[in-house]
Amino acid sequence: MKNLLSDRLAEYGDVASALGVDAVALVPGPNFTRAVIHPFMSHERPFLLVVPARGTPAALVPNLELRSWDLVGFDGAVFDWRDQDGYDACFSDLLNHLQITTLGVEGQVMRVFVHHAMLRAQPDLKIIDAEREISALRMIKTPDDIDALTSAIEISERALERTLASVRLGQTEKEIEQTLIQNLFAEGAEDQAFHPIVAAGDGSARPHAKARADYAVKAGDALLLDFGARKHGFAADITRTVFLDYATDEAKAVYDTVLRANLTGFDVTRAGVTAHQIDDAVTGVLEASPFADRIRTKTGHGLGRDVHEAPYIMRGNHQVLPAGTVYTNEPGLYEIDNFGVRIEDDVLITEEGCASLTQFPKELTVLKC
Amino acid sequence: MKNLLSDRLAEYGDVASALGVDAVALVPGPNFTRAVIHPFMSHERPFLLVVPARGTPAALVPNLELRSWDLVGFDGAVFDWRDQDGYDACFSDLLNHLQITTLGVEGQVMRVFVHHAMLRAQPDLKIIDAEREISALRMIKTPDDIDALTSAIEISERALERTLASVRLGQTEKEIEQTLIQNLFAEGAEDQAFHPIVAAGDGSARPHAKARADYAVKAGDALLLDFGARKHGFAADITRTVFLDYATDEAKAVYDTVLRANLTGFDVTRAGVTAHQIDDAVTGVLEASPFADRIRTKTGHGLGRDVHEAPYIMRGNHQVLPAGTVYTNEPGLYEIDNFGVRIEDDVLITEEGCASLTQFPKELTVLKC
Repeated sequence: MKNLLSDRLAEYGDVASALGVDAVALVPGPNFTRAVIHPFMSHERPFLLVVPARGTPAALVPNLELRSWDLVGFDGAVFDWRDQDGYDACFSDLLNHLQITTLGVEGQVMRVFVHHAMLRAQPDLKIIDAEREISALRMIKTPDDIDALTSAIEISERALERTLASVRLGQTEKEIEQTLIQNLFAEGAEDQAFHPIVAAGDGSARPHAKARADYAVKAGDALLLDFGARKHGFAADITRTVFLDYATDEAKAVYDTVLRANLTGFDVTRAGVTAHQIDDAVTGVLEASPFADRIRTKTGHGLGRDVHEAPYIMRGNHQVLPAGTVYTNEPGLYEIDNFGVRIEDDVLITEEGCASLTQFPKELTVLKC
Repeated sequence: MKNLLSDRLAEYGDVASALGVDAVALVPGPNFTRAVIHPFMSHERPFLLVVPARGTPAALVPNLELRSWDLVGFDGAVFDWRDQDGYDACFSDLLNHLQITTLGVEGQVMRVFVHHAMLRAQPDLKIIDAEREISALRMIKTPDDIDALTSAIEISERALERTLASVRLGQTEKEIEQTLIQNLFAEGAEDQAFHPIVAAGDGSARPHAKARADYAVKAGDALLLDFGARKHGFAADITRTVFLDYATDEAKAVYDTVLRANLTGFDVTRAGVTAHQIDDAVTGVLEASPFADRIRTKTGHGLGRDVHEAPYIMRGNHQVLPAGTVYTNEPGLYEIDNFGVRIEDDVLITEEGCASLTQFPKELTVLKC
């Protein structure tokens, strides 16, 4: 553990060097967990790990986390503070110790109260958003990471199979959602990767729909399930859309279009492709269809410890994707007040091409229920 | 819904007035959900509701959330942006429209990338942390809020009863945790309020312990379960500590001390008490015991849409607590490498005194398992 910790901390120091800042700071979240190989919660108490480009890292730790922090095996300076004393003096001590003038932070994770506490302690500290560079260290997955992702996906797929087998006309979206969640835990999830989307009929046309307790699914509905298990700290993210009892010709044509877009994503993916190229090819299929006005989203996002992480698979992102990257290939078409279809797979980029970590069938499915 | 929305937005405008800032901004989270009466997820896309002290509110909405946003019934200006265009121009448009120079934000919720985007759009914008004032609107619970909390607590207590009935010596902490989570959903939780703490033996001495897959519970262990269901958007938070097979005299004495501290919290609570006074009384019981060196935490925190919210029940917080406040009364004693005990109830402050929303028995319990 100790050597892995040292190696990981050195990687964040290298990020600081490459950015030309004196240090980078991590707060509890996916980068923090990866760095210290131990999960800590984000809560109302500031908790900060600072890794300088040169020199020894230091940490600001809430006193009541000290015993958990001991398990990390960290040998840098630790500044702790107690609730009754507040944390301002502790930030001053930390920053006095570090003697830095520029700091890269995780803009998507660090909250404003920590940013403000740092500036109260050192008003001339220059804080830059280094989210992209810090999180980039998580982009190439290790074999252990892939094993964890695969476990999370297998659990998710077993839960989906059980859930679809139990769907009946007249159930509410909420009931189906609760069944799905229970199946995730019954199949071995350690947590939900995110709150599932279970949306039928017109609800399926809202990409981030919330399951309704007052909508009963009916014959002809599209039923979209977007969900995932978390296992060993990694998140699955899978979407399947099925039709209940029957599918109209329009539904079949839309589904076929989305499926062709999804398959095109696999065709163009190999180490060295850019995020732009994938989205351009996938979205291009949708644009060339009669349903181009139903496009609402980019192709996908990176997947790992976080459900949404780099790389974002969208036009304009010319980031080159190396082997070991995992991303979601999730084209969709959504017509408001009508229905939506999304098919989402988790894709591992390899030197030769790619592999789908998701294995759940994606042929047009009409549930007789 | 529309009138409630207008009323709620007006309340946030009043917060801005009282603070002497031009507007307050909300981002997805508990205040945002309370304001718009509809849940939105926090993710990598900025999403912002700005309520000025005078004038009409405005919102910055990711394009793919527009259809969900329509359900809110918001009649202020809406600025949307698409992934492929980025959001910088949209922040400029929003801030040009608003013509503000000072803005209060939720420091515990807003992330640095939003803060930076606002300052890129308007470098002279003065952003202050108004977390306390904004969140204070959630402190006094409505009858509907109390009903939701009560539902969440009842689900949690049924799940605890089922879980304790199934504990067997030799199970791992992780197995017990998974059983607890499955029971929460089986009893009707719409989500977990937070990832449960299930900690036995020396693990129970770490306040934020994570369940271990390699620790099997054994006779004589303390078993601490800290968890809660979420229902109708509100979070339960309950802790019970039981002993497996037998309790030593030390365990009994520690448990009795913590229970007396918890009961003292109820004795001193009524509308008009300060957070300081509660913590002083509760912690005073612990300090007067032979176990004073095992104190590691304050008495508790507010509870509602968020698991940890204002008021924080700690010495030095001289905030006066009105009827309708709900807080956690959760004294504990923790000896590293030995064991810990925590007893946590959810307390509703009333004019005459207080009521425990949690009803689960808290007499010393030795599970014969």
